[in-house]
Amino acid sequence: MNFKLEEAIEVLERTPQTLAIFCSGLSEGWLQCNEGEGTWNVSEVIDHLIEGEKNNWMPRLKFILQEGESQPFPAFDRFSHLQDKPVTTIEQKLLEFKNIRMQNVAELRKLLDSETKLELTGYHPAFGVVKLRELIATWTVHDMTHMSQIVRVMAQRYKTDVGPWIEYLGILKKG
Amino acid sequence: MNFKLEEAIEVLERTPQTLAIFCSGLSEGWLQCNEGEGTWNVSEVIDHLIEGEKNNWMPRLKFILQEGESQPFPAFDRFSHLQDKPVTTIEQKLLEFKNIRMQNVAELRKLLDSETKLELTGYHPAFGVVKLRELIATWTVHDMTHMSQIVRVMAQRYKTDVGPWIEYLGILKKG
Repeated sequence: MNFKLEEAIEVLERTPQTLAIFCSGLSEGWLQCNEGEGTWNVSEVIDHLIEGEKNNWMPRLKFILQEGESQPFPAFDRFSHLQDKPVTTIEQKLLEFKNIRMQNVAELRKLLDSETKLELTGYHPAFGVVKLRELIATWTVHDMTHMSQIVRVMAQRYKTDVGPWIEYLGILKKG
Repeated sequence: MNFKLEEAIEVLERTPQTLAIFCSGLSEGWLQCNEGEGTWNVSEVIDHLIEGEKNNWMPRLKFILQEGESQPFPAFDRFSHLQDKPVTTIEQKLLEFKNIRMQNVAELRKLLDSETKLELTGYHPAFGVVKLRELIATWTVHDMTHMSQIVRVMAQRYKTDVGPWIEYLGILKKG
């Protein structure tokens, strides 16, 4: 076990600005490319991250603090960001993500005022009993999953363009 | 084929600052973790990116411009950054990477003053004839490969900490 709250927060705090630097001002070619039907482009990944800030991580964390294992987490639609998307620029999305993440991290710090709270448990509808520390570790890894996804999706765009070098580029061989 | 020089440069220009935002100030736990013996930690990945700026991309690009296919690229040791490493902080490494990348992108723009140069060819010791545009596409994808590697290596650190959520986190199932 490696989890420490302050180290997890190091990542949670850096993700929005990291994505803002990498994605702001990119050409439409980079922002719109995906890995085929039913897969997400860069812009949709940011939508998903915003959605998670609103409806997944903090609501579940508060649910654990309030309800414990007494009832399962309310359902969370991982695809809801694909419906009724308002038309906004990538820069607006990145700013929204940064703002809501900063609020959430501030609230996280306030709510977890003691180490022992990390051991509190909740009831996941699919997994059963889960710990609050596992939820926060997952939130952190979830950020990294989607940062990895963004660069993988963009890299795929050059799959043919790299010519024979594809042999050395493992990222182009993954789905 | 999707390659456009200006779009490739968009990525090449963003990588150093993206990594600087994500990696500066991280705890040693994040910077030192790796995926097991013979694998790289975050700090070693940055060393490798610096090495590539010095000895791989621009030297090969210039070699194509000067020599064409007449002789193969000189050998390039992909592991040389692991020897005789000076002890520097991650922040110093990130700054070195940013400075040398900025110089290289400026030189790239100057050298490739016409679109037709993208079609020039060189001779890769393993692959045979390669195009200059393929070299630059590879440089770009190489950046993304190593950004992906950094978040994957860090994510692995929480492999056990996420508990049952590992099932939803594909990044933890890859080498």
